[in-house]
Amino acid sequence: MSTADFPADAWADVEQPTLIIDKDRVRRNIERMLGKAKSSGVRFRPHFKTHASVEVGTWFRDLGVTAIMVSSIDMAEQFATAGWGDITLGLFNPRALPAIERLSRAVRLGVLVDSPESARVLSSIAAAVDAWIDVDTGYGRTGITWDDDSQLAEVLRTLQASPHRVRGVLTHAGESYFAASPREIDSVYRRSVQRMNEARDRLAAESSQPLEISIGDTPCCSIESDFSGVDEIRPGNFVFYDLQQLALGSCTRSDLALAVACPLLGVYPDRGHAVVQGGTIHFSRDIVGPEQPIHGWMVGLGGGSWDLMPRDCRLESLSQEHGEVVAPPDVLAGMHVGDLAVIVPAHACMASNLIRRAVVVDGEFTRRGLV
Amino acid sequence: MSTADFPADAWADVEQPTLIIDKDRVRRNIERMLGKAKSSGVRFRPHFKTHASVEVGTWFRDLGVTAIMVSSIDMAEQFATAGWGDITLGLFNPRALPAIERLSRAVRLGVLVDSPESARVLSSIAAAVDAWIDVDTGYGRTGITWDDDSQLAEVLRTLQASPHRVRGVLTHAGESYFAASPREIDSVYRRSVQRMNEARDRLAAESSQPLEISIGDTPCCSIESDFSGVDEIRPGNFVFYDLQQLALGSCTRSDLALAVACPLLGVYPDRGHAVVQGGTIHFSRDIVGPEQPIHGWMVGLGGGSWDLMPRDCRLESLSQEHGEVVAPPDVLAGMHVGDLAVIVPAHACMASNLIRRAVVVDGEFTRRGLV
Repeated sequence: MSTADFPADAWADVEQPTLIIDKDRVRRNIERMLGKAKSSGVRFRPHFKTHASVEVGTWFRDLGVTAIMVSSIDMAEQFATAGWGDITLGLFNPRALPAIERLSRAVRLGVLVDSPESARVLSSIAAAVDAWIDVDTGYGRTGITWDDDSQLAEVLRTLQASPHRVRGVLTHAGESYFAASPREIDSVYRRSVQRMNEARDRLAAESSQPLEISIGDTPCCSIESDFSGVDEIRPGNFVFYDLQQLALGSCTRSDLALAVACPLLGVYPDRGHAVVQGGTIHFSRDIVGPEQPIHGWMVGLGGGSWDLMPRDCRLESLSQEHGEVVAPPDVLAGMHVGDLAVIVPAHACMASNLIRRAVVVDGEFTRRGLV
Repeated sequence: MSTADFPADAWADVEQPTLIIDKDRVRRNIERMLGKAKSSGVRFRPHFKTHASVEVGTWFRDLGVTAIMVSSIDMAEQFATAGWGDITLGLFNPRALPAIERLSRAVRLGVLVDSPESARVLSSIAAAVDAWIDVDTGYGRTGITWDDDSQLAEVLRTLQASPHRVRGVLTHAGESYFAASPREIDSVYRRSVQRMNEARDRLAAESSQPLEISIGDTPCCSIESDFSGVDEIRPGNFVFYDLQQLALGSCTRSDLALAVACPLLGVYPDRGHAVVQGGTIHFSRDIVGPEQPIHGWMVGLGGGSWDLMPRDCRLESLSQEHGEVVAPPDVLAGMHVGDLAVIVPAHACMASNLIRRAVVVDGEFTRRGLV
């Protein structure tokens, strides 16, 4: 696809806001991350919430990936049905216990435990799961604080007395999303790995088996190339990347593998904007900023792929169905009702979650829904 | 439902984030708006994007409503299949022209036209639709500026030369959502109606038939009770209301008819919050604020319905799947992993769009999906 131009009628039947996925870029993004995992000798367990697509999943499988993370029971069931046999659930919802038990009989299921209370609830099911102790190394959302020895030990004891296999400690260093530079991301990573090693070492004395360390967030996993001291990485967003990751320095413009084609509904030179069908029900309200927060950036198509427009052509204001693309007069002059505006979103995970129509660009230029 | 308490096991099988719809409140909200429309002698055309539910639609139909607004072709087809025969599309996407033509043969279809270019595109189909000229009276998103005589006239001429029926002028005074008080909403309303009458009167000389005026946004339609000078109102959000409308003064706490039940994943008294399964994929990132922006407010259940917690128990920070409920220590002490936190969202339209599992509370306490 990288050499051929798009066929002239490639977009002819795109009627609604539609994801455009550049398969070559996706494969390159996967290969790069997989290569770093291999050379570091760590398990690569990509988080599939970003695409939630069985088809995109096969692109991972074709490259040898066998372990995945998902965010919900529904998603776990979807990928189990598609033949994935090693699945970690990104959150433990005790109300879904019957489904967890059912699923754990079909696949090797990983479950996060982040409190003594959750450990006791999980202990009540008979089918064994891989239990991961969720540790907070600074993000402050979920997880047991890395130096809270008594809670860590209590959870370990409860799990060791249960039918479950204690695999190790796991964290999501989500504070990397708030870093001001790749250097700060690196600091987040180092601090997180240091604290995870401390937590693991504290537990080692009480543990009946070796404990692994699992980390995972796209900024850290993109910036780092050496994952020494870690056993598993679980990034998700890297498969598509987006404007947030570009701003963080996690990727380059040519790694941006997902865009949204939005029908142009109106062009208003007097107001300095065009209006597209593409609102919060397509992009959510996620932004990249913060000085001048935007929801997306228009791209130009050429050479069979796309690149960000050289000047500010930005998706700035959203209502439920509509978005305003602010652009210079000469760009607006070239936009017409019924055209498509192709826009890279601030946050790819949300656009991909909300829009399930997709065109996959892969040389032959196929189009299909995202399933 | 208003007198009976919830059965003790009412929530037992709620496993995932689930909408809770109070049918009595919904009916009261519909009846109130319908009553005002009737006493003003205007057509009531509720915007169905808020619920997008065939079932909730029947509650409108049972009260005599026959005309509706929807936001997309997909939604129009859904309601046409459910027997609705008078449907206005909230946006005109020229790329969906074949679907528009097909649908216009099945139902009385309204289409918004907001530029000469769109008027020409719409003229190319043979099946007649109800054309509404989209007018901007101050919101600045879509529509022809109310005093742009030449564009208004050009659109009218183009449509009159087409097979379509020109019904009148239509606006969405979305600036009412930014009003600081009901008094300001009233000013927005009066200005908008004044300008719509000016636009209509300007066109009257050139029009071959009388032109109607259609307005619609929940803040204005909730604040006003007399719709003189208008022919049609099209509010949507009023069916459920939400924290944004409460802050605007459009509704009272006892009008809040939609909440989201979220599984409690963790309670962290040290951090001053609990974590629920309920993130941007359930609530979007819409906020009410702006001083201390929040995504939702926890409610207490009692008397068969709910009310906002007397103290700050607010959904403050969202990631994709998780939300943090900030609450005082004594409230957190009463929350346990596996409970449900029931939360009124900042923006009901988004929560309802994103979560399609629903429990409808209506006396017998039924539960079902939202279709």
